[in-house]
Amino acid sequence: MSSPEGSSSMKLTHDQLSLQEVYESVVSPACGAVSLFVGTTREEQLGGSTVVGLEYEAYEAMVQSEFAKLCEDIRRRWPSVRHLCAHHRLGWVGVGEASVVVAISSPHRHDSHSAIQHFLSELKAKIPIWKKEVYDSDEQQWKQNVECSWSVNHH
Amino acid sequence: MSSPEGSSSMKLTHDQLSLQEVYESVVSPACGAVSLFVGTTREEQLGGSTVVGLEYEAYEAMVQSEFAKLCEDIRRRWPSVRHLCAHHRLGWVGVGEASVVVAISSPHRHDSHSAIQHFLSELKAKIPIWKKEVYDSDEQQWKQNVECSWSVNHH
Repeated sequence: MSSPEGSSSMKLTHDQLSLQEVYESVVSPACGAVSLFVGTTREEQLGGSTVVGLEYEAYEAMVQSEFAKLCEDIRRRWPSVRHLCAHHRLGWVGVGEASVVVAISSPHRHDSHSAIQHFLSELKAKIPIWKKEVYDSDEQQWKQNVECSWSVNHH
Repeated sequence: MSSPEGSSSMKLTHDQLSLQEVYESVVSPACGAVSLFVGTTREEQLGGSTVVGLEYEAYEAMVQSEFAKLCEDIRRRWPSVRHLCAHHRLGWVGVGEASVVVAISSPHRHDSHSAIQHFLSELKAKIPIWKKEVYDSDEQQWKQNVECSWSVNHH
């Protein structure tokens, strides 16, 4: 049995992400609901160029502490949330591949749904991970994430 | 490349569900977002008894047509939704095992999030699948799903 407060874990990795591994980190006999989200590299057209991949980098020392704060925030808002797990890719992520996988468990589905939406908005806004878009024209461009206060400081 | 309208698929099975299989049915280079939900059998206490498992049955002939209607409804509300896939267990589902896995893809995350919440509410209300709770006291009880109009007619 897991502790009543549940676990929170965040992993940064250069390896391909496993949806099953993230799912297994949050599933619990006390929870009937697991909400998950997978963010993938989308084949996007920009002018005459097509995105062929994204390159991720992170300020790793800050990622864990920002993640811990975000988990505290979520447990305050949705006390029934049991486990949270997020895995994020670093380095090159080709079109169709997953860059982030998140899973949250709770006894009933409404709390896991609300919590994962909030988690993703806050992840983009507060956790120091940046992406660079790479085009088929050999152009590269650091993505100005309008949601991300960190990106302003970084570039 | 998938068709612009995307695919919709629903499977009923007595076998264990595969999260990866459902995910792969919806992932697309045109979509940066996949929202997923897994519903599992929760270890619930009721009086002195504990749920040890659920038994599912379905009115199979109606499930596909109700699913098709629900998918049409979702595509009307969120036209950017690309693919939908749902797998649902029949028969015995022990504590901790998945009874339903749903995945929806869209270019951006807000549409897949909203669509999956709506899908799950409507699934419970309109798709003719029933569950029977089985307790460690050897009691059994067809679950009166308050959300489900079908359950009233069936029992």
